[in-house]
Amino acid sequence: MDATEFRRRGKEMVDLIADYLENIEQRPVYPDVEPGYLRSLIPEEAPEESETYEDVVKDIERVIMPGVTHWHSPYFYAYFPTANSFPAMLADMLSGAIGCIGFSWAASPACTELETVMMDWLGKMLKLPEDFIAGTHGQGGGVIQGTASEATLVALLAARSRAVRMILASDPQRPETGITSKLVAYSSDQAHCSVERAGMIAGVRMKKIPTEQSDKYAVQGETLRRMIQEDKAAGLIPFYFCATLGTTPSCAFDHITELGPICNAEKIWMHIDAAYAGSSFICPEFRPLLNGIEFADSFNFNPHKWLLVNFDCSTMWVRKRSDLIGAFKMDPLYLKHDHQESGLVTDYRHWQIPLGRRFRSLKMWFVFRMYGLKGLQDYIRKHVELAKEFESLVRADQRFEISADVVLGLVCFRLKGSNEVNETLLKRINNGRKIHLVPCQLSGQFVLRFAVCARTTESRHIREAWRLITQLAEEVMQELPH
Amino acid sequence: MDATEFRRRGKEMVDLIADYLENIEQRPVYPDVEPGYLRSLIPEEAPEESETYEDVVKDIERVIMPGVTHWHSPYFYAYFPTANSFPAMLADMLSGAIGCIGFSWAASPACTELETVMMDWLGKMLKLPEDFIAGTHGQGGGVIQGTASEATLVALLAARSRAVRMILASDPQRPETGITSKLVAYSSDQAHCSVERAGMIAGVRMKKIPTEQSDKYAVQGETLRRMIQEDKAAGLIPFYFCATLGTTPSCAFDHITELGPICNAEKIWMHIDAAYAGSSFICPEFRPLLNGIEFADSFNFNPHKWLLVNFDCSTMWVRKRSDLIGAFKMDPLYLKHDHQESGLVTDYRHWQIPLGRRFRSLKMWFVFRMYGLKGLQDYIRKHVELAKEFESLVRADQRFEISADVVLGLVCFRLKGSNEVNETLLKRINNGRKIHLVPCQLSGQFVLRFAVCARTTESRHIREAWRLITQLAEEVMQELPH
Repeated sequence: MDATEFRRRGKEMVDLIADYLENIEQRPVYPDVEPGYLRSLIPEEAPEESETYEDVVKDIERVIMPGVTHWHSPYFYAYFPTANSFPAMLADMLSGAIGCIGFSWAASPACTELETVMMDWLGKMLKLPEDFIAGTHGQGGGVIQGTASEATLVALLAARSRAVRMILASDPQRPETGITSKLVAYSSDQAHCSVERAGMIAGVRMKKIPTEQSDKYAVQGETLRRMIQEDKAAGLIPFYFCATLGTTPSCAFDHITELGPICNAEKIWMHIDAAYAGSSFICPEFRPLLNGIEFADSFNFNPHKWLLVNFDCSTMWVRKRSDLIGAFKMDPLYLKHDHQESGLVTDYRHWQIPLGRRFRSLKMWFVFRMYGLKGLQDYIRKHVELAKEFESLVRADQRFEISADVVLGLVCFRLKGSNEVNETLLKRINNGRKIHLVPCQLSGQFVLRFAVCARTTESRHIREAWRLITQLAEEVMQELPH
Repeated sequence: MDATEFRRRGKEMVDLIADYLENIEQRPVYPDVEPGYLRSLIPEEAPEESETYEDVVKDIERVIMPGVTHWHSPYFYAYFPTANSFPAMLADMLSGAIGCIGFSWAASPACTELETVMMDWLGKMLKLPEDFIAGTHGQGGGVIQGTASEATLVALLAARSRAVRMILASDPQRPETGITSKLVAYSSDQAHCSVERAGMIAGVRMKKIPTEQSDKYAVQGETLRRMIQEDKAAGLIPFYFCATLGTTPSCAFDHITELGPICNAEKIWMHIDAAYAGSSFICPEFRPLLNGIEFADSFNFNPHKWLLVNFDCSTMWVRKRSDLIGAFKMDPLYLKHDHQESGLVTDYRHWQIPLGRRFRSLKMWFVFRMYGLKGLQDYIRKHVELAKEFESLVRADQRFEISADVVLGLVCFRLKGSNEVNETLLKRINNGRKIHLVPCQLSGQFVLRFAVCARTTESRHIREAWRLITQLAEEVMQELPH
């Protein structure tokens, strides 16, 4: 395919995409296929000779679409949202065409520099403390990671490296492996599974801090303090705490104003994972949820969830970028360049797990400019309102209960009654394929999660979803043995 | 921006991309900007109100392009190639629009299933041993990672976990941290810096195996065997060896037919990193370079380098997928789904570091079908021929020498003489901004790397590059003190 054909096929693809997104609600949100469905629909081997574009494009509806879970359908209420906006898609097309790999400043200065400035823009939108803004002389700054999982891991590795350095500074003879084996990290029992996984990857102990329904599933300062004291008494070295703002099960918020000073006093690295909730902090009314950020060493959230920037774009800030870089720095000759020791230059490969990286900040630039801060705030507020509307519908029905405070766009709810009846209800809902939800477990209870996800979700979709849920609930309850 | 405006702007963007790529060789390949250039060109904060698309698009030439290193210019000969093809860009547009997050089968069955089948297609193109093909009943299979760095790390973590399991099986009382601190991994001193980094991340010892110019920078079986014996005698536990096929400095190939049996006998996980060279193995004449794959536990290369699939697409196969999954598995309720215990289902989140993942196999599907195996082979062969052409030009000039065998698309060469004169030459070349190269170090010598990179590079570009290099070399040599 040459550029001339690309001009034609690219325009057809733009129309195909617009058609798909304009008509997405006509499709069943959840696919009706069995595992292994796709293999039999296509050949067992790649073709020897080239096929035409028509051959390929007609297979999209035949092979792909039947197996797609439509995350951008206004009837999709599962997991958390993943962003999708037209400005982000346009920027991503451009990013693909430029196709630079921005591992160092020299590898494409625009790729690195736009990222640093976009991270400052976003940091200012969130009113992050000045320490986290790179500016021209800052010690901190931001980086785009692929996912929150990677940000959690990168922060953990930086913390591990800082802890080892601090201990060796006071006790240079101590063997490094002896230090690592004594390190202990903490996170809430409500934290995302990727936090525990980060501990496994880095080979350090990760302890879960118990939370209670009565505390709204937030980590309490007293609990953290007690665990730290016990671990220190047992000869362990507490070094990392991952706080969560907006947990995956119920969108709970750890009390970082209380937890942060404990971490600071103990020289424990506090990382804040606000993967979903972080986007809301651009609204003044939700910004208080981020109070306590001034005690954090690193902070991360996913614009690719709720800020209209397509996946992947997980934004992470650190107070001291030397802490991050120190954990990773490698400088082979084939990656050296003239400017790298100038101090003005950022080589983002030292900030992340992979070496290669796309020009992702273009998506942020297009989205921030074409929506404007007000447009982005409106978008967040609309989703929260829709969640509140759903919450009202649930509260007005005596058969149901709300399982956790509705703070942002997630509603946790259930039928009053057994876990079995709720599991049955969820199965009916998803088998119906008209709306899609996933469950969570809260204090031993099987709970349904209703997350407002799609950019195009409106009140009518919420009401239709509720109509379906109550209809299925009625069926399920009628079938119950009396 | 609504779908109607997207139809219009998307088509304009398609033309902008085609224009950019059709005229790319008119641009200086390497930008003439100083660190910090971009910040002063745009506002310090995001706009409150939305801007128009025209506002944004006109800034591409003003703000972005002056700072872009044009990786797809036919005058770009630095690093290794990064892929860029029209079919891949079209597929990526579709992937962005579908915008599903394929962390589990249920999260979008098509995303997972197309990936498994595309990895089988590609595995068959490479004539991988049957063990690495998923099929319907295989124990192995493939996964798309973001980068080779991640594949190396994932393999290392799987190896670490397997080693600990094996030792605990024979000695259940042994403390796990005591095992990890004794583990030792190996790679060539020519291996990519990400291999050493993987060791740092996983917190295990990583030893570099010395190589010699006389052995063409390949790891010798005898050297590996000796290091293993010495380490075992010292109480260490060898568990992982990362072999490289096509090293970054000089495209050297470790002798895996010799190294593999040693690893197998010692129960050491052998991972093969063929990031760049791997694409060539689809050609029968280059496939012998992969002989010995039958001894490997995992294998990885980057179609996003040399197989026309845009970044990111790093393909990794494992012989036993249970080894990989076992190192990571976490199953919170919000990610469970009905089918996951069926055995037929792949949840790729257990195969990788991040949780989220894009629908990247669409790019492979489009590219493999629209080029066909023959088209892809032609593409590889053309690049190798161009490198051979450049090699001939160098060899015909008595002032220059070739520093390593030219096997694929990389030519390592230098002026006969001091490192200083070669450093000066490279600086002149890059300051000219007409062509772009990076150096490497081989046996203490400063060497220039000339990698055929762009899809559109032709013989005339190679000859023009050589004309420039010799012209600058003449200048540099005339300035030398006699």
